[in-house]
Amino acid sequence: MSTLAPATDLAGLVARRPVGQSLEAPFYTSREFFDLDIEAVFARHWLFVAAEAELPEPGDYVTVALGPYSVVVVRDDDEEVRAFHNVCRHRGARILNDERGSVGNIVCGYHRWTYGVDGRLLHAESQPADFDPSCFGLRSVHARTVAGLVFICLAEEPPADFHEVAARIEPYILPHGLRRAKVAAQIDLVENGNWKLTMENNRECYHCGGHPELQCSLFPVYGYAEQDVPPVLRPAYERYLRADAESRRTYESLGLPYEAIEELDTRTTGFRIQREPLDGAGESFTEDGTAACKRLLADFRTPRLGRLSMHMQPNAWFHFLSDHAITFSVIPLAPDRTLVRTTWLVHPDAVEGVDYDLDSLTRVWTATNDQDALLVARAQQGIGSPAYRPGPYGPTEYQVEAFVNWYATRLKAHLAR
Amino acid sequence: MSTLAPATDLAGLVARRPVGQSLEAPFYTSREFFDLDIEAVFARHWLFVAAEAELPEPGDYVTVALGPYSVVVVRDDDEEVRAFHNVCRHRGARILNDERGSVGNIVCGYHRWTYGVDGRLLHAESQPADFDPSCFGLRSVHARTVAGLVFICLAEEPPADFHEVAARIEPYILPHGLRRAKVAAQIDLVENGNWKLTMENNRECYHCGGHPELQCSLFPVYGYAEQDVPPVLRPAYERYLRADAESRRTYESLGLPYEAIEELDTRTTGFRIQREPLDGAGESFTEDGTAACKRLLADFRTPRLGRLSMHMQPNAWFHFLSDHAITFSVIPLAPDRTLVRTTWLVHPDAVEGVDYDLDSLTRVWTATNDQDALLVARAQQGIGSPAYRPGPYGPTEYQVEAFVNWYATRLKAHLAR
Amino acid sequence: MSTLAPATDLAGLVARRPVGQSLEAPFYTSREFFDLDIEAVFARHWLFVAAEAELPEPGDYVTVALGPYSVVVVRDDDEEVRAFHNVCRHRGARILNDERGSVGNIVCGYHRWTYGVDGRLLHAESQPADFDPSCFGLRSVHARTVAGLVFICLAEEPPADFHEVAARIEPYILPHGLRRAKVAAQIDLVENGNWKLTMENNRECYHCGGHPELQCSLFPVYGYAEQDVPPVLRPAYERYLRADAESRRTYESLGLPYEAIEELDTRTTGFRIQREPLDGAGESFTEDGTAACKRLLADFRTPRLGRLSMHMQPNAWFHFLSDHAITFSVIPLAPDRTLVRTTWLVHPDAVEGVDYDLDSLTRVWTATNDQDALLVARAQQGIGSPAYRPGPYGPTEYQVEAFVNWYATRLKAHLAR
Repeated sequence: MSTLAPATDLAGLVARRPVGQSLEAPFYTSREFFDLDIEAVFARHWLFVAAEAELPEPGDYVTVALGPYSVVVVRDDDEEVRAFHNVCRHRGARILNDERGSVGNIVCGYHRWTYGVDGRLLHAESQPADFDPSCFGLRSVHARTVAGLVFICLAEEPPADFHEVAARIEPYILPHGLRRAKVAAQIDLVENGNWKLTMENNRECYHCGGHPELQCSLFPVYGYAEQDVPPVLRPAYERYLRADAESRRTYESLGLPYEAIEELDTRTTGFRIQREPLDGAGESFTEDGTAACKRLLADFRTPRLGRLSMHMQPNAWFHFLSDHAITFSVIPLAPDRTLVRTTWLVHPDAVEGVDYDLDSLTRVWTATNDQDALLVARAQQGIGSPAYRPGPYGPTEYQVEAFVNWYATRLKAHLAR
Repeated sequence: MSTLAPATDLAGLVARRPVGQSLEAPFYTSREFFDLDIEAVFARHWLFVAAEAELPEPGDYVTVALGPYSVVVVRDDDEEVRAFHNVCRHRGARILNDERGSVGNIVCGYHRWTYGVDGRLLHAESQPADFDPSCFGLRSVHARTVAGLVFICLAEEPPADFHEVAARIEPYILPHGLRRAKVAAQIDLVENGNWKLTMENNRECYHCGGHPELQCSLFPVYGYAEQDVPPVLRPAYERYLRADAESRRTYESLGLPYEAIEELDTRTTGFRIQREPLDGAGESFTEDGTAACKRLLADFRTPRLGRLSMHMQPNAWFHFLSDHAITFSVIPLAPDRTLVRTTWLVHPDAVEGVDYDLDSLTRVWTATNDQDALLVARAQQGIGSPAYRPGPYGPTEYQVEAFVNWYATRLKAHLAR
Repeated sequence: MSTLAPATDLAGLVARRPVGQSLEAPFYTSREFFDLDIEAVFARHWLFVAAEAELPEPGDYVTVALGPYSVVVVRDDDEEVRAFHNVCRHRGARILNDERGSVGNIVCGYHRWTYGVDGRLLHAESQPADFDPSCFGLRSVHARTVAGLVFICLAEEPPADFHEVAARIEPYILPHGLRRAKVAAQIDLVENGNWKLTMENNRECYHCGGHPELQCSLFPVYGYAEQDVPPVLRPAYERYLRADAESRRTYESLGLPYEAIEELDTRTTGFRIQREPLDGAGESFTEDGTAACKRLLADFRTPRLGRLSMHMQPNAWFHFLSDHAITFSVIPLAPDRTLVRTTWLVHPDAVEGVDYDLDSLTRVWTATNDQDALLVARAQQGIGSPAYRPGPYGPTEYQVEAFVNWYATRLKAHLAR
């Protein structure tokens, strides 16, 4: 580290990235890479930002903060989900200031410029005769839904392969009936680490020994090839193999797609999806593996469906179970601060206190998220030392490596423009 | 926005400013423009910083924080108001650490270096024989008073036209007797926005619909030409025309100057001054327009004098009424934080609880300032989005445009040096 | 100051430093100099970081934060004190997260990589066959002890003269028996100023008039040559001369080294050491100068030993008394924030509440530190003004000048590499 060096050599650091190892420190600590990540990753790719269940009616909206951007995601009068920059075209005021709500029109509180939920400027007081409202509609943001999940893309030309990915994941997710689900809980957690450390933490189970609650239902050998399973995890691995064989029969009899598709770093819209068994009762993320909600998400013949799990680059993961679904989205706040938003979805007719207990529903992932936040914070702290050097990813961390590969490829593509 | 761009191109942004529109985002958000604003605007121009009423006796002082500067404004033993940098000439310690007070000498708390209220170093202990105290007086700052208002200028060569401006505004203000007034209240408010957004907000009434308390006495058509008055404001506009005609007769019978002088962007010391009527009872900024203080500021024959209002570039505005005066000064704290100091002045013999109720005196502008703070914060938030684009000022915002013109001219002049 | 200037010209500012005066503002206020100070001073020189008494047993450790570095100082199984970077070699997590504790092995909480207290990687789960643990030991930091004080150096090649300095100061300090002492108290104070202002404040008694508690025992003429003593300090100076003559006889009869060695700016490991009398009862830093702890640190024949005081560049000072010892270390946190850690050591068998009262033991230096923190904060505030200019050090501030000389020499040497 030289204090006298010129500004961080972003392109050089990307180009000389050591493959198979964690990134050099500036990727995790510098303001320059934070800004580049927003520009090259978060402002260019499709991002999961909400469940459709958060916007059931026309006029319902959520506001999404993405780095310096604020985006309004709103259901329009034709029941389509649309997205706009939350910036008045007059003098730039932020228009909608709550996290969510419902509106007839979108009205700026400063000078009452009034926009429809389709973004058109409907009224601006005391303007000159040559003022053309059609030039001052809200700037739009690409939006689309996939099986009840809302994605947006800030780029003018979003990655084209997203629609192909959507077509491949929809058959897996649709049976869970998310479009008509309801939000049982949503928790925002701020982790004191770079967003990539949050993602890397999510993409391996090498650290799952630190998640006692999660290990009751999630096999802690996720991501392990047989030869990498250490003796202490051998019994869990044997249970996994038996449960997996049984599960496949169930999935086939129910016609549920389950085979893994793993294209994490081989395309622009990197993803991974797979249905696989859970440990214990095999039904849900609870301390004994039984369902947390009596009312299942759909008319499944058994609650014992394990988990349909999906990873989306750059910033989301999902678990779709028989009784509920959990979505996770990761939003960078600062080089060393990251928002993790976790949302629990249940059947729209499930009644809290009758069909499910909110604390039992959320306990495992709340505890797991808190544990991960501590690990991420320690990684951030250690990487902040000039003594830090990139270290080797082991075989069980191959999905971490895939995330980093995907990320480095996106940066290279962006810098080459 | 490119993360890889070199440092903000200040001169380029100034040069290519779109006339008739709000400024580009970096003017409001970047540290570079904040520093430039301090250097080119606040360290070069005359600034209103206090009422003389805050320094009634020799030795009375206020300390003024202006960006990185701290300035002591003190009344010297000859009753002149003087100003000095609040920095010890020994090892640089800040000397006076309170916002206001009274001193015999100005003594540094570190090593007891002792200065007179004229800035001369009077004593420094244990110095060598060749130590010359006359080389170590406090560094002085230009100061002058105008009709009871204290202005300072940090520049070595202050704008020369200030004295001409002073001569033109003095006849308007002097009748209000501010030199002998007293401070009834002073409130500091920190707005979460750039100082220019605070000023722009002050310079138009297009947003006055958001000020219900203020609209009881201030005609919300301030700044509107007849053809721009919308139907909803037509009744207020008609009342304004009637009140204006009546007021002019009053002003002329009392010999009070009232005609508007508007030189907001045509000179270095930009200003605007005008006496005009108030709505309701027409006396003061209260909820029914009646005087808030029974004891008038001077021996006026009627309290129904409306408001003598003055704007000073870069950072102040004033309302002088029959019963009290209100001064506003704006101090940048950070690119997105601004101090607004509001001071209420009344007749020195007015007695709180007898002649005026403090809450009634301050209610309208306290509420209005709070409302404006929210609007300014929303403007700052929206402009922070990369999706922000400069938008058009309408005809009722011509004084906003004049402020921005003045500002851009000052920056150009500074950068051209 | 020009906002448009390129980045701070560090080398130019160092080269043109005005000798005999305080430094120019950027040395105290800029992030660039803060980073340079960490790199050129704190990462290159020997630093006092703990008393051996803080690590009595094998496995005992303290973690030391030095700028961006975190260092583990641990006593190994051979009872040697060793130091390592507190950064896991896997993915960089900070390993030990408490300020102090005791461990068998050093185990990373993320993926259970396990290191011995000698730094070797003992175990990493699920690694490939070609993984070589000997390549992934903790990165070591130089460490050594001197008469019970622990010093570390982050440089690959530490200054060679430290061992000579150690040999010269050991005979002074060893009689105080610090290796077997115990920690009675440790207080961390954050001062709102640059670390060099904290050091400059420590290196003169020109400001001691602001320390009423300290002046009861410390002669406030420390650092004064006879001709610089002002009339008000003349009585104290006379008492000092008498006490000094008497003390020398005591020191000689006890065989205690006492002559001043002052090599503050003439070598890489700058230092000063001297034994001299205290005022009042002459025994300790208390309000009447009597011992604060009945159990002396060693088998001295009298408690009236005055103070053995030592300064170490860049960041420490010490007072060794008959009844207790006090160590001070200074750690930069930010350009304007500095940690001062004060540790009180007493005889290992001294019993709180019997042999000493904790409040009486710590009162004088706690009060003095708090007073200094206020002075340092005011210096930082004043120097932050563009109106600040370097001012002259007087004769009584010659040790401040020596500190600044040493500092500037180190920076020049570093920048010349």
